[in-house]
Amino acid sequence: MRMEITELREKLLGTFKDFDPKEANSIADYLLWAEMAGVKTQGMVKLVGNAPIQNVKPTGSIKVEKETGISQLINARNHLAIAVSQIAADAAISKAKENGIGIIGVHNFFTSDGSKAFYVEKIARAGLIGIFCNRSPSSVTGFGSIDPLFGTNPIGFGFPTNEEPLVFDMATSAMTFYGLLIAHAKGEKLPTNVAIDEDGNLTTDPSKALNGAILPFDRGFKGAGLGMVVEILAGPLVSAGWIDNKGQKLEWGALLIAINPNLLTDTDTFKNNCSDLIKKIKNSRKETGHQDIRLPGERARKEYNEALRSGFVEVDDAILQELKYI
Amino acid sequence: MRMEITELREKLLGTFKDFDPKEANSIADYLLWAEMAGVKTQGMVKLVGNAPIQNVKPTGSIKVEKETGISQLINARNHLAIAVSQIAADAAISKAKENGIGIIGVHNFFTSDGSKAFYVEKIARAGLIGIFCNRSPSSVTGFGSIDPLFGTNPIGFGFPTNEEPLVFDMATSAMTFYGLLIAHAKGEKLPTNVAIDEDGNLTTDPSKALNGAILPFDRGFKGAGLGMVVEILAGPLVSAGWIDNKGQKLEWGALLIAINPNLLTDTDTFKNNCSDLIKKIKNSRKETGHQDIRLPGERARKEYNEALRSGFVEVDDAILQELKYI
Repeated sequence: MRMEITELREKLLGTFKDFDPKEANSIADYLLWAEMAGVKTQGMVKLVGNAPIQNVKPTGSIKVEKETGISQLINARNHLAIAVSQIAADAAISKAKENGIGIIGVHNFFTSDGSKAFYVEKIARAGLIGIFCNRSPSSVTGFGSIDPLFGTNPIGFGFPTNEEPLVFDMATSAMTFYGLLIAHAKGEKLPTNVAIDEDGNLTTDPSKALNGAILPFDRGFKGAGLGMVVEILAGPLVSAGWIDNKGQKLEWGALLIAINPNLLTDTDTFKNNCSDLIKKIKNSRKETGHQDIRLPGERARKEYNEALRSGFVEVDDAILQELKYI
Repeated sequence: MRMEITELREKLLGTFKDFDPKEANSIADYLLWAEMAGVKTQGMVKLVGNAPIQNVKPTGSIKVEKETGISQLINARNHLAIAVSQIAADAAISKAKENGIGIIGVHNFFTSDGSKAFYVEKIARAGLIGIFCNRSPSSVTGFGSIDPLFGTNPIGFGFPTNEEPLVFDMATSAMTFYGLLIAHAKGEKLPTNVAIDEDGNLTTDPSKALNGAILPFDRGFKGAGLGMVVEILAGPLVSAGWIDNKGQKLEWGALLIAINPNLLTDTDTFKNNCSDLIKKIKNSRKETGHQDIRLPGERARKEYNEALRSGFVEVDDAILQELKYI
């Protein structure tokens, strides 16, 4: 049903009332953004089901374990990923503003932080280039293996322009792990050629895929290579795990980088040129049947802005009922 | 024919005798590596044909236009890409050793610097993480456009381990532009589904593809997105061009990044863990028909080491004849 955004925010803050108020606010910011932007698979669905994120119990305060003028390694001590990645993005922004680059590693946080777009957009709004990748539990194969090796290992990029930031994010897998779980729960078949069973045969059966592996996004060597790159950058580099390392403390890792364009060019010139690049892509000749060219992040921003203008957001009734919001 | 490596080096230095001796040596290093590693399409073929690279005329000394403790913007003044990218890699290494990160932008250099693997391996051998991407003349489409938008925009990554570096590089296009030129010259058909003609129809005719565009490597939205990311990082960010900017001074751009793992972790631990990651991938279960798992960069390294052991390298007779080496 359509719910007033201000009302939904109050209810979300109620759900996270035992959290640090700043963290609770940033969690609500993210969840509202995801629902408003139509990124429903990365939104309030995280509050229901077997492991609702509001039930997480941190093991202490977030701890900076290593720090320089351009870097920080954060032990998140089981704090919620959605809150921690915003703290990490703010740290990256602050260091890049001051010293040109901020490179922030995070380990030991609670599950997925959702859409990379939200965080790299935050960095891009500060006039910086944002790069963000995650290592997640191993579920994706590659290189001629039939075992799960890498996580679905998403990566996102954000660039400042004269208008809204240009944002691109993607999983390095042919489908998200969450998508696989949903298909399994609903008893739906998978698309052909996205997953293999335990013996390495292509399967459309989600339960067989859960015992097998997801394929790289291009079903090939390059996709596996990019998955491996993310596995290292957001795994061993940030004191998180790799391949078969199991358990909450190791299975999730994050690397956020903010680059100040003024290290290499003038920031205003850079923004102008990024705006010009967007205009030129949009103005290029289109495939038959394409009315216009849709750039990454455009659809989500359009939906977000429409929700913002109306003051209302559409949320799944089942989720609202389970949370007793209605 | 098989030629002694020491003899080939002498001959290459002869071809580049009018160059600065240090640059000539680094050019010979790269070309020998490419031939020995079997990366023939990025090797001595650059010395023959319509625009042999030894004919380039620099317009002055390489100039550092902007510099900080962690960054450098280099105006290469039409120096040869192969030499300049090694200078940039050395600068990245030196800054990352001293200050944790080195981010080096290069513009105004002469054509392609060949395989990214060579340069990121150099960075990884210094105990650092290497990232290297290039913007090249627009030839690749995406996002529902039928115009060439981005270059073939390669990207490479290198990681230090306890053994040889782990190196991965790829073009973000379905085929290289050089591959297209070769198919055109030889009158060969292209694979299906790698290129479109001027009107946006799939074509296997290289001359039609040259008037049309190459597809992204995954033929999809994610590949186009990654091509766009490289277009920005190695274009506007480094004072090179984007989309339809033409001419030698703008069409090529490079961004090299070296990251010192000790910013976030202990370098020895990082190397150990990267070695363990490789071992685990290699030891995973294989697809039917796969004897072992081939990781990125492995085949090239095997061929390189074999050539090194034998003291001889196989080079195309036609190239050796055109250069009057035989």
